[in-house]
Amino acid sequence: MHRRGFVMGMFAAGISCVGSIDAYAQADLLPSWNDSGSKQALLDFVARTTTAGSSDYIPIEQRIAVFDNDGTLWSEQPIYFQVAFAIDRLRQLAPAHPEWRAREPFKSIIAGDMAALAASGDKGVLEVIAATHAGMTIEAFTRLVNDWLASARHPRFDRPYTDLVYQPMLELMALLQGNAFKTYIVSGGGVEFMRAWTERVYNIPPEQVVGSSGVVKFEMQQPDKPVLMKEPKVEFIDDGPGKPVGINRFIGRRPVFAFGNSDGDQQMLEYTAGGEGARFMGLVHHTDAVREYAYDRQSRIGRLDKAWDEAVKRGWTVVDMKADWKVIFPFEKQQ
Amino acid sequence: MHRRGFVMGMFAAGISCVGSIDAYAQADLLPSWNDSGSKQALLDFVARTTTAGSSDYIPIEQRIAVFDNDGTLWSEQPIYFQVAFAIDRLRQLAPAHPEWRAREPFKSIIAGDMAALAASGDKGVLEVIAATHAGMTIEAFTRLVNDWLASARHPRFDRPYTDLVYQPMLELMALLQGNAFKTYIVSGGGVEFMRAWTERVYNIPPEQVVGSSGVVKFEMQQPDKPVLMKEPKVEFIDDGPGKPVGINRFIGRRPVFAFGNSDGDQQMLEYTAGGEGARFMGLVHHTDAVREYAYDRQSRIGRLDKAWDEAVKRGWTVVDMKADWKVIFPFEKQQ
Repeated sequence: MHRRGFVMGMFAAGISCVGSIDAYAQADLLPSWNDSGSKQALLDFVARTTTAGSSDYIPIEQRIAVFDNDGTLWSEQPIYFQVAFAIDRLRQLAPAHPEWRAREPFKSIIAGDMAALAASGDKGVLEVIAATHAGMTIEAFTRLVNDWLASARHPRFDRPYTDLVYQPMLELMALLQGNAFKTYIVSGGGVEFMRAWTERVYNIPPEQVVGSSGVVKFEMQQPDKPVLMKEPKVEFIDDGPGKPVGINRFIGRRPVFAFGNSDGDQQMLEYTAGGEGARFMGLVHHTDAVREYAYDRQSRIGRLDKAWDEAVKRGWTVVDMKADWKVIFPFEKQQ
Repeated sequence: MHRRGFVMGMFAAGISCVGSIDAYAQADLLPSWNDSGSKQALLDFVARTTTAGSSDYIPIEQRIAVFDNDGTLWSEQPIYFQVAFAIDRLRQLAPAHPEWRAREPFKSIIAGDMAALAASGDKGVLEVIAATHAGMTIEAFTRLVNDWLASARHPRFDRPYTDLVYQPMLELMALLQGNAFKTYIVSGGGVEFMRAWTERVYNIPPEQVVGSSGVVKFEMQQPDKPVLMKEPKVEFIDDGPGKPVGINRFIGRRPVFAFGNSDGDQQMLEYTAGGEGARFMGLVHHTDAVREYAYDRQSRIGRLDKAWDEAVKRGWTVVDMKADWKVIFPFEKQQ
């Protein structure tokens, strides 16, 4: 039967309704965006694809929009926020692990050398993630993440990390959600780290978060408690060519809209662009050292180099944060 | 921000609305179910959990319902339908693979020995799946599945396999969908095999199908075609203790409602039962050899033994197909 043809037993209060809008007929739906080409391209895409009869109309079930997280929806400097979580947790656990005092990168991190982790490469990062993200249930991990978010502060802005989300991107996701697009996060970050807070912060429920993951095992703890335990072993890296793979695994449809900010998003944008019909591909370019950070081709974190060249060549939208965004963080509006 | 607090730009026609109902105040929402304890337990659960103010009320975002597929939503005898697909495809490919004529279980299957595959065990089944489900794009595989469904006939009922879905379960899923439950399939079957048709047949979109999967790789085919290729290697088996793991990976929430039919669903039901608040755990017991099949503790396919004992012990609902279902297949209504 058809997807929307079988809603039965409707009674009493309708709780949510979705429809299509003519974006131009509305009040400003992207108030934190300057009236630039980026903003017009976004409003135009939403109007074209949701207006019945338009040659670019996209049926509701195909309205899949994917967003990278680090550097696209929230900041990623001076280190990925999940790495800050891992470092804080490593230090907290250190007294119970005297063996770490003789082992790198643990030793340096515990001593306060923030650069040691980066210097240790992928291997070191994975060892630290394994030591700090495993050996507990999913629920216990979720609590740890939320406890950390409630107390940790970003070193430059002296605010909770979840304050450092991008107001223009919140508006963009709300615009898409209001037009029956299903918004997904597709991130190299850990899926359980993100799911702990994405519903509260981005209005994106856990089932719409795709990310990297470790092995999880089902256990029946005695006498009668079924739990899922996080194990210290990587299962899937949702980055670069892993992003289209993650999209296929979790969503099973090719997106029509994709936003990223770095070379790790290139294949996700290519995969999105490769489908039939109207598409939108966008990149956030970090150009504002005063209000946020400025980095691109030479950055160790969030390098934007090959994907930028491809975006220019193909005519994808490249958002210039400094020029295109009136406000970067929600707290700027309140000041 | 809150999940439902940010719908903006609503204009023109509302297309879908969800709400809560009092199931008892309605016309019969499960017309193919006899007035048995199973039916009452289902209606009672939906009424209790969706009535505002009820102590068993479940917020909409937590209304996750999971269903096994083979033997729970459609038949699984005399062999899993996906295995029938693999056998048909193996025979179709055989002329181009002379080497198969000297290799078991390929040789026997090509010669028409349907039992050879089962006899070859997991190893044989995986070899046949690898030979028939890989080396092509996701889109090409989806077309293959749909072409097969359009022409293949079930050996006993002489009908397309998708005719052999259970009418009472379609009604149950529609009842839940109409009450804002998100219905998921969580099956040992291949995720891409199911996604090819679940939206059309069950009203379940691809992103709500969790299943076993093979490795998939992103490739940029020359000059400019990004594709996902299916590789001949198993990645994840979504069965037994793998089902709660698959649920966590894809959905990231513990379900409140779970339906299965075999020991492969036991851990999914245990995991569902292990959460807080109102829950529903159900099993389909195949008791009707005349209209469908009768099998349980001794069956090689869909064995129901340990999960049955646990259901009895814990008071989970066990549906007796013969006694509880007026109609089994949709085509019975049209006769």
